[in-house]
Amino acid sequence: MSSQKSMHLCAFLCAGPVSHSHAIWRNPAHETGFLRGDFYVELARTLERGKFDFVFLADRLAIADQYGNSSETGLRYGDQDATRLDPIPILGLMAAATKHLGLGATRSTTYGTPYSLAREMATLDHISGGRAAWNVVTSMNDSEAMNYSAARHLKHDERYDRADEFMEVTFKLWDSWEPDALVLDRANGIYADPTKVHYVNHVGKNFQVRGPLNIPSSPQQRPVIIQAGSSGRGKRFAARWSEVIFALQPTMARMKDFRNSIRAELADAGRPEDASKVLMAIMPFVGTSRSEAEEKRDLHDSLVVPQVGLSTLAAHSNSDFSSLALDATVSEIESTGSQGNMAALRSIAPGGSLTIAEAGRVYGSGVMCPRSVGTAKDVAEHLLSIIDDDAADGFVLSPAFLPDSFQDFVEHVVPILQKSGRLRREYGTETLRGRLAGHA
Amino acid sequence: MSSQKSMHLCAFLCAGPVSHSHAIWRNPAHETGFLRGDFYVELARTLERGKFDFVFLADRLAIADQYGNSSETGLRYGDQDATRLDPIPILGLMAAATKHLGLGATRSTTYGTPYSLAREMATLDHISGGRAAWNVVTSMNDSEAMNYSAARHLKHDERYDRADEFMEVTFKLWDSWEPDALVLDRANGIYADPTKVHYVNHVGKNFQVRGPLNIPSSPQQRPVIIQAGSSGRGKRFAARWSEVIFALQPTMARMKDFRNSIRAELADAGRPEDASKVLMAIMPFVGTSRSEAEEKRDLHDSLVVPQVGLSTLAAHSNSDFSSLALDATVSEIESTGSQGNMAALRSIAPGGSLTIAEAGRVYGSGVMCPRSVGTAKDVAEHLLSIIDDDAADGFVLSPAFLPDSFQDFVEHVVPILQKSGRLRREYGTETLRGRLAGHA
Repeated sequence: MSSQKSMHLCAFLCAGPVSHSHAIWRNPAHETGFLRGDFYVELARTLERGKFDFVFLADRLAIADQYGNSSETGLRYGDQDATRLDPIPILGLMAAATKHLGLGATRSTTYGTPYSLAREMATLDHISGGRAAWNVVTSMNDSEAMNYSAARHLKHDERYDRADEFMEVTFKLWDSWEPDALVLDRANGIYADPTKVHYVNHVGKNFQVRGPLNIPSSPQQRPVIIQAGSSGRGKRFAARWSEVIFALQPTMARMKDFRNSIRAELADAGRPEDASKVLMAIMPFVGTSRSEAEEKRDLHDSLVVPQVGLSTLAAHSNSDFSSLALDATVSEIESTGSQGNMAALRSIAPGGSLTIAEAGRVYGSGVMCPRSVGTAKDVAEHLLSIIDDDAADGFVLSPAFLPDSFQDFVEHVVPILQKSGRLRREYGTETLRGRLAGHA
Repeated sequence: MSSQKSMHLCAFLCAGPVSHSHAIWRNPAHETGFLRGDFYVELARTLERGKFDFVFLADRLAIADQYGNSSETGLRYGDQDATRLDPIPILGLMAAATKHLGLGATRSTTYGTPYSLAREMATLDHISGGRAAWNVVTSMNDSEAMNYSAARHLKHDERYDRADEFMEVTFKLWDSWEPDALVLDRANGIYADPTKVHYVNHVGKNFQVRGPLNIPSSPQQRPVIIQAGSSGRGKRFAARWSEVIFALQPTMARMKDFRNSIRAELADAGRPEDASKVLMAIMPFVGTSRSEAEEKRDLHDSLVVPQVGLSTLAAHSNSDFSSLALDATVSEIESTGSQGNMAALRSIAPGGSLTIAEAGRVYGSGVMCPRSVGTAKDVAEHLLSIIDDDAADGFVLSPAFLPDSFQDFVEHVVPILQKSGRLRREYGTETLRGRLAGHA
């Protein structure tokens, strides 16, 4: 490794037909087997070949029907929420297919239960040998609420308050077995030391959980905590709990602003300013020439049906803006869902004057995910420039097609990054947390 | 296959140090890697080599502390609830390691949520190509309640009422996508037919769930439903919903009685009397001679610490009977937990005169699981006699040691069963449900 800063790489996936790109499943080259196990096995192996730090699976808990108060558009054209398999069984499958790749699942603190979440993460961490990560979300919209016996989604700050308590409980549960509580003295029949396993006796506003967890301390003790909140309250939450922050910022200026604001929040939370790694979303289009890469991009964008982005945008904003004219501006959308995405969207055009129609195209082709388009060398240099500008610690690579985008990246861009000394050539023996903390 | 009735085979596992046997982890031959992924991968491959129908993972949601109002005994000696990994990530891992083995997870209707359960099972069914099964339980004790923000476990009939509603909701969710709703017309960008995806609009006493599921119809549409209730209310529930019934009956007479009572319950529920397969728990000890098998059994039993069975019995009965004298009879235990296990326990000695001390030994060495001890031929003939006596459709094999017991069985007993024409030599291409419904 050179003395220059190395980068962390994460792969972004939804366990469904689309991710940020709404064209993934329309891959003209071949079917995308997003319902099949072998599809995820192959993806995991590709990412491990490329020495990625981890993969993470986004998630949502309902089919979207904000747009026009109907799921018709989203289902017909395949919006981001038309299909989402559950991340956890898929990560179990990926754990069997790999040895080093970190395994991140999105789980909601608004609609989950702490004891169940703590168990599934501790289990994933055990069976993967210390590779589990949890992308903590508070969920987005009323459709999700209505699948969980609630009429309305919790208000923004209320759901972060609940999330704080959820984190407190799960951390207590993960600490309820001291690391050396397990004795396993087969000869004398002593399984564990009862004095080192503790009730947690949590009594809070939202949860009453006695514990202890019924699982001994796992290799990482607790999963690596990922967070993507980018509202003010979201950033405070991330600064308190996260070890990795995933950000989707459409411009270099916003990346740097975001990075700096996280440092300030970390300082306010009394943590070192590099306590949480900031990974920026990037959608790469890699060609043997720039024009080939541009053709891939243009083909990709041509496969996005205009309406589908509006359906996803409505889900993210928890708002039916279908009565607004297509040439109205996005500043007229009132979001009670994601605050960060809406701020980013308004930022793309000065004065928030992006039209609804334009927003639908931006959302459909990649939910504002910035692109890196060019030869492998171009893309590698682009990524390195962002690192060198101190705008990120690494990247969340968001695919345009599957498995094509990851294959292209691993085959062509990764060797250049490795040659530059900025990306590991081999995994070590450390846990995911150890890898993120080190420079390897 | 002969014209005689063939048998179904299931492997019973807890994702922890013990199962019915409390000696598993004390295996003198080697460590039992119950926290490691490769341990489960190897087990799954062994079972698939033996052409088992499926594996199922039992579960519980708390460390037990009924006995003496403390978890001390259970943790020190390793009772059934001292450690339980979450079944679902492990079944994901097993799905990657196998192609045919059915994959069953225990999940509780008392402490789970229908939408999350429906998603994880549909996901497991997709990524395994139609091999998912759900062992429906209503949970057992107050320790579990206290990990889920409740002070006390629901009363027996109340929790079955809730379970009925839970099943209604999940079945509606699994039916919310018509099987041909997914269009996947890549050329024209049509993902699904919105007219074939339906809200479920469930509004009940315990749950309000709008749906639809955010996952298309899976290969089996819904998981195979397994149930093990053996109280009157439990049997009615099983007769309504189950496709497989798992029973632990300590004697041949009780096996036959149970089998007949299930037939009567199925008839009452308006279902054919073979609509649900009855699988009986058996713990095999296979030796090259009878005396070698008996030595294995005796070694096994010698490794069970007497107190540990009492801790598990207290958890199952949700009752602290530690103030009863060791020579008191089990009929003095008042169970608000499992009704079926307590009835079986009282049945072992006429008049319920089994003592507490004896019950601890019976529970610790195998929770009343009947044994089959002898040469491979002896064990094969024993199993066939139970089938031929019409007392079961197959077996839930419960291991004494891991992976040893399954290896012994697969290597030595399975070939005899295959030669007799009563166990498949190869898997077909059918789903788990198809395999259970057929005679292959």
